[in-house]
Amino acid sequence: MAELRQDIVTGLWVVVATDRALRPTNFSAACVVPQPDELEKCPFEPGHELMTPLEVLAIRPDDGEPNAPGWCVRVVPNKFPAFLMGNDEMDSDALFPRRPADGSHEVIIHSPSHTASLGTMPVDEVELVLRVYRHRYRANAEDPHIRYVHIIVNKGREAGASLEHSHSQLFGMPLVPPLIQQELAGSSWYNQRHDGCVFCRIISEEMTLSRRVIAKNRAFVAIAPFASRLPYEVWIMPRAHQESFDMIEETELVDFAEILRETLGTYYEKFGDPPYNYYIHSAPTDGAEYPYYHWHLEMIPKLTTLGGFEIGTSMMINITTPEHAADFLTGRSEKGMGAL
Amino acid sequence: MAELRQDIVTGLWVVVATDRALRPTNFSAACVVPQPDELEKCPFEPGHELMTPLEVLAIRPDDGEPNAPGWCVRVVPNKFPAFLMGNDEMDSDALFPRRPADGSHEVIIHSPSHTASLGTMPVDEVELVLRVYRHRYRANAEDPHIRYVHIIVNKGREAGASLEHSHSQLFGMPLVPPLIQQELAGSSWYNQRHDGCVFCRIISEEMTLSRRVIAKNRAFVAIAPFASRLPYEVWIMPRAHQESFDMIEETELVDFAEILRETLGTYYEKFGDPPYNYYIHSAPTDGAEYPYYHWHLEMIPKLTTLGGFEIGTSMMINITTPEHAADFLTGRSEKGMGAL
Repeated sequence: MAELRQDIVTGLWVVVATDRALRPTNFSAACVVPQPDELEKCPFEPGHELMTPLEVLAIRPDDGEPNAPGWCVRVVPNKFPAFLMGNDEMDSDALFPRRPADGSHEVIIHSPSHTASLGTMPVDEVELVLRVYRHRYRANAEDPHIRYVHIIVNKGREAGASLEHSHSQLFGMPLVPPLIQQELAGSSWYNQRHDGCVFCRIISEEMTLSRRVIAKNRAFVAIAPFASRLPYEVWIMPRAHQESFDMIEETELVDFAEILRETLGTYYEKFGDPPYNYYIHSAPTDGAEYPYYHWHLEMIPKLTTLGGFEIGTSMMINITTPEHAADFLTGRSEKGMGAL
Repeated sequence: MAELRQDIVTGLWVVVATDRALRPTNFSAACVVPQPDELEKCPFEPGHELMTPLEVLAIRPDDGEPNAPGWCVRVVPNKFPAFLMGNDEMDSDALFPRRPADGSHEVIIHSPSHTASLGTMPVDEVELVLRVYRHRYRANAEDPHIRYVHIIVNKGREAGASLEHSHSQLFGMPLVPPLIQQELAGSSWYNQRHDGCVFCRIISEEMTLSRRVIAKNRAFVAIAPFASRLPYEVWIMPRAHQESFDMIEETELVDFAEILRETLGTYYEKFGDPPYNYYIHSAPTDGAEYPYYHWHLEMIPKLTTLGGFEIGTSMMINITTPEHAADFLTGRSEKGMGAL
């Protein structure tokens, strides 16, 4: 049994083909050899502050000197930035257009503890991280060169992290990326036809159905989206309409921390501390208005590998239904990946 | 130093940020424990023909019975298909649209040898595989339900393969996938403005510049594309205009086999038998004409991991310039990934 599902926002179709999870594999197992000098090399440890570029922000409960120990959360420029201000102008032509990758790239270190993790940290520490997100989002959004602010977590090497110490990354981008453009186009189109926010409509329908709801609290709901691109994908959405992440209120920050901690905690329990990615989708910061958009956070445990189908088509084959994902993550089902 | 590069066909921008290759890593190394019963379990071994669905095609030099040993190349339906004819109709609504994933999904087993690999096989065996591609492409293209035929190789577990025995997959899809739609839109737009094929123009310019050329022969050229999405990405393109893969002529099949074998052989030598993906981009098989399109093969060694940036934006960060990739793959430079 296989089906196609369309994301009403982007218009993208997804193949849901659960039988593929039953494919046999004859590859060898891997075992892990721990490195003894991990802590000494880690640039995010307290006492190693000078191994990173100078900090742009740090939360120090007892004040104290910048770029020294005593911080709870610390923000530094990425030492190996994807986006950076001050690139030189460069040649460009019609067939091979190019321009500088102006912008910013920051690292948000979640905790002084090397082994802390957002899925197991106390909620108030997660809240502090999200408060720092909001602060840095706003600071970057004010820069006229930055048209989109993208905040992500890559946890674990298999999810693309190069350092184990828990951290987020913020990209201040000089353009609005394709996936956001698609979401904007889809939500604008929906708004023109139906005079309303498509995300608000989805949230309302999902909460009525309840079938794909993973968690909820006063201000947020976590769902397994209907056209999930990847197994056990979860979206955390503000229940009230809000176009941009930086519009989040004080009380909502608490609820956001609670539901994020809860959902990551569920990943931790169900998949045994898995690698994962999450990222925030928010309205562009280019000065235009996007009243039809609705920010949210998307997260995916790294359980599968993209291949020549996905890379060559920009279309995903998802081997798990979101309905099963919801059953599994909420404890209604004990069955693993690929169940219907 | 970082820059953005635009693919003139899709309009997609890519970040080229070579410094990121220098990022430190503190993860542990993995070691491999081989499984002794690999061959007994492999459904693609001669003698194991009944472990797969019944074959749809096999090349048997000495004739012989179907679904028995004696074949050089064998095609079977995928036992765990992503696309399949005969799905039931299903409920769909405006907010959650869906439809059956009708189509086909075939496996092309390259050789009876468990350890054969396209990068090290004799060229005439590669040619036989490509001849089978053409045959199955044409057979699937005739089906009125199939609007696009996507042929891929995933080699190695890290590239998404679930079986080690060398094989390709053919997907008969009921829709034209997004990346092809973007390429069609871009090449159609170029053709309207410039009255010509954008790919022909790129090939001509790349051959003049020579900077990003990896290999060439009478009918084909292999280049590191200007806006490469991933490190060491290579495109193999027919030098003469040809919109669809199944239009390839007999003599061109020989040249295609030669350059494919050569390029994969280079991957094998330079990266030590790496995991990789390749896939063919070709005109849709939906009955319409696409005179402005130009088929080609794209290949990527699996050296990096996609993270929350790429998954969340549909935009890639490539840590290697295609100019360096060309230098490295042609032996002009010995330096590894991330060099400028």
